[in-house]
Amino acid sequence: MNASIAGPEIERLIQLLSKLPGLGPRSARRAVLHLLKKREALMGPLAEALADAAEKISTCSTCGNVDVTDPCAICAAPRRDPASICVVETVGDLWALERANAFRGRYHVLGGTLSALDGVRPEDLNMAGLFERASAPEVTEIVLALNATVDGQTTAHYLADRLAGIDVQITSLARGVPVGGELDYLDDGTLAAAFRSRRPT
Amino acid sequence: MNASIAGPEIERLIQLLSKLPGLGPRSARRAVLHLLKKREALMGPLAEALADAAEKISTCSTCGNVDVTDPCAICAAPRRDPASICVVETVGDLWALERANAFRGRYHVLGGTLSALDGVRPEDLNMAGLFERASAPEVTEIVLALNATVDGQTTAHYLADRLAGIDVQITSLARGVPVGGELDYLDDGTLAAAFRSRRPT
Ligand SMILES: [Zn+2]
Ligand SMILES: [Zn+2]
Repeated sequence: MNASIAGPEIERLIQLLSKLPGLGPRSARRAVLHLLKKREALMGPLAEALADAAEKISTCSTCGNVDVTDPCAICAAPRRDPASICVVETVGDLWALERANAFRGRYHVLGGTLSALDGVRPEDLNMAGLFERASAPEVTEIVLALNATVDGQTTAHYLADRLAGIDVQITSLARGVPVGGELDYLDDGTLAAAFRSRRPT
Repeated sequence: MNASIAGPEIERLIQLLSKLPGLGPRSARRAVLHLLKKREALMGPLAEALADAAEKISTCSTCGNVDVTDPCAICAAPRRDPASICVVETVGDLWALERANAFRGRYHVLGGTLSALDGVRPEDLNMAGLFERASAPEVTEIVLALNATVDGQTTAHYLADRLAGIDVQITSLARGVPVGGELDYLDDGTLAAAFRSRRPT
């Protein structure tokens, strides 16, 4: 885009918005035009909400979730079952399971999967904390809710091996999850059903 | 989306982002997850860029463009031809013509089109200033660069009628613009060619 079309403030906004997933340069321009039309109703509030979130939100040092408190609301909730920890790849997967009301225990967010191709090793993921948590006396089940992708399943097998020495039951989601499917794209019903019929690994 | 999944700060962010064109609730969630991953590199800078733009950018009181100065950079540029004014529906159309390097004069942004269906009347658009500008002695041409839609062409005819009493040549874009086509979606080459072969209305 020709740098002289709009001022540098607008150009910078277009450039930053076009870095969001699903927004290319053209849709970023449309988004900026929309924001410019709704300066008071949308642009200002969005600026504040972003600044607020950027300032307040941090990663939970227990589970890897994001929240304004550490530990996060899920880790801190007394009514959530401390006996069961559900391991997910990303916060998006955690949100998907929460939307499906699939699980009443706590989570552990790895922050990705092992990947030979991308050079992701166990120490690059949020795993050490999981082995510690799994060893706590109140924990009786670890649900491996990883994506049904090659890397997701490789990571699940790795975790099952590492957790084998600990006195917990390891389960994984039922094969309701389609092969190659990503949790965040599943409808809530499928996800809840797969969760209910989870089985020992 | 279940309100308890993420904190109110995140929920608000998802809600505001889902108001942008092209982003539904699901893509807004993905965008927020991406922003949360890039808090320092993207979320903070985007918050600042939005606040900056919301604070500094205003509508040009001469032409209706948006910029950090009033008059806008285009109206103020001494090297732009003061003899020719190009009338467009939206700032997005102005940007599209600038990207195509189609025009070296100045603009007038109507802010929409006349529409019987939506009840948009001449006084609802930025028209009064146009008639004033068209009457200035240095102005010799008004280019009606409206979309080739029913409402765009109705508006063009209305403007041609109203401008008929003023000593300026009224031109419109050549029929390179496909029927029903919107300027902002055209490739730069087509747009530039249509502009070059503009003809008297
Ligand atoms: Zn937590
Ligand atoms: Zn202007």
